[in-house]
Amino acid sequence: MTAGVDASDRTALALGIELTAVGDGRATARLRLTDDMVNVHGIGHGGYLFLLADVAFSYACNSRGRAVAHAAEVAFLRPVRPAEVVTAVAVERTRSGRDGLYDVTLRNERGTVVAEFRGHARWLGDAPAAEVPE
Amino acid sequence: MTAGVDASDRTALALGIELTAVGDGRATARLRLTDDMVNVHGIGHGGYLFLLADVAFSYACNSRGRAVAHAAEVAFLRPVRPAEVVTAVAVERTRSGRDGLYDVTLRNERGTVVAEFRGHARWLGDAPAAEVPE
Amino acid sequence: MTAGVDASDRTALALGIELTAVGDGRATARLRLTDDMVNVHGIGHGGYLFLLADVAFSYACNSRGRAVAHAAEVAFLRPVRPAEVVTAVAVERTRSGRDGLYDVTLRNERGTVVAEFRGHARWLGDAPAAEVPE
Amino acid sequence: MTAGVDASDRTALALGIELTAVGDGRATARLRLTDDMVNVHGIGHGGYLFLLADVAFSYACNSRGRAVAHAAEVAFLRPVRPAEVVTAVAVERTRSGRDGLYDVTLRNERGTVVAEFRGHARWLGDAPAAEVPE
Repeated sequence: MTAGVDASDRTALALGIELTAVGDGRATARLRLTDDMVNVHGIGHGGYLFLLADVAFSYACNSRGRAVAHAAEVAFLRPVRPAEVVTAVAVERTRSGRDGLYDVTLRNERGTVVAEFRGHARWLGDAPAAEVPE
Repeated sequence: MTAGVDASDRTALALGIELTAVGDGRATARLRLTDDMVNVHGIGHGGYLFLLADVAFSYACNSRGRAVAHAAEVAFLRPVRPAEVVTAVAVERTRSGRDGLYDVTLRNERGTVVAEFRGHARWLGDAPAAEVPE
Repeated sequence: MTAGVDASDRTALALGIELTAVGDGRATARLRLTDDMVNVHGIGHGGYLFLLADVAFSYACNSRGRAVAHAAEVAFLRPVRPAEVVTAVAVERTRSGRDGLYDVTLRNERGTVVAEFRGHARWLGDAPAAEVPE
Repeated sequence: MTAGVDASDRTALALGIELTAVGDGRATARLRLTDDMVNVHGIGHGGYLFLLADVAFSYACNSRGRAVAHAAEVAFLRPVRPAEVVTAVAVERTRSGRDGLYDVTLRNERGTVVAEFRGHARWLGDAPAAEVPE
């Protein structure tokens, strides 16, 4: 099984996404862009960049309690070449009751930022009790 | 080949996304969510909903001239069940010079809205000459 | 008192914002940009364009029941000249339980779109009972 | 004249916004919410929170060269009481050629985060030469 991925996470398993450093409102996800993740311009598809960020975001916010994503924004900053590994690092920005905001930065293999994502989470049960980061 | 899909669009072809009604700043994309597009909550993965919207957006804005997506926002409104067909309808909201804004509504098989997407396009060459919709 | 403005809406009253066509998830707000609403580039300040859209959005979603805005996105498309009247038309895009999405289009006196806004509302009590627009 | 504010910035001057720590892609803006900045719910108007963030963002990106804001997103996390001073701290998140992304955090007098803003800037002349922050 792919490292760190929940056994019920069919999407991450099928794509070979690796999860590391999950916990305390954080998570890191990695994906190698295959030839089937290319758009009409011959570069990595923005949809897969978003999906990767969304996976990192999901593990980060679910580390606080069962949560759903209800909105997100993404900025695509640089093209990604096929066959590159993209790394998405999700960190908790802030929380307020049952609402949380997470920032996910995506980088290529040389460490250059290729996209920035912000996800809005809502916890389904009680609000997480842990301290809000300052 | 999948109906309406550009031969160089590896992502849409690999996922079996169908494209119809492409032109004049519009496009419709359809995707059947497979068992490999499910998240840890057992419902359709938001990443694939975004990807589908992004494909519809891409065909819509590229119908005006070669364009890139540089930002997008999405709101996830209702869960989608696996095996359902999701339809994404992209329409041009407005244009200003080389910048364009596109709205994409995603619906399930019963016609209920499951997500709303807004994409920001930038044309790479001259600004499209066609009239801006009122 | 300014037409259509709630007596407790200090912001709209102080700025002279006019409200019309409020109801059924819709509202129209108008503001004349004064010399004190100009930025360092000598054009209308984007902050006041957002504020005007936010007012229209607020009246539109509160026409369904007591609601709060919890997020919004805006695209600034064209500069606005000082002394111009800007009109913001808010329409309901969709609702899902206690969540609603509203689109606000801002136009100058010639009817040209100058900005587009999307607001996310959450109702504080029961979800509105009225039909969701198709 | 209000500290740190450009003499041509009519909006910031008229509202009494103070600017500090402007430079190297950063800026801090402060505003005391007056009784005329209250909404129908009796709390600080989200439009003024956005405006304050937009001012901080503007000074931050213009410290790199003449720039315009072309899009922004905001999340409203907690109500602000009238008469409170709100502080908006803008930091550069990343740049790519002539595009820049800035995060602005807004806090009340007790240091609690009340809103988060992300602004998209575009430089009008050459791209800024300074190093992108890692």
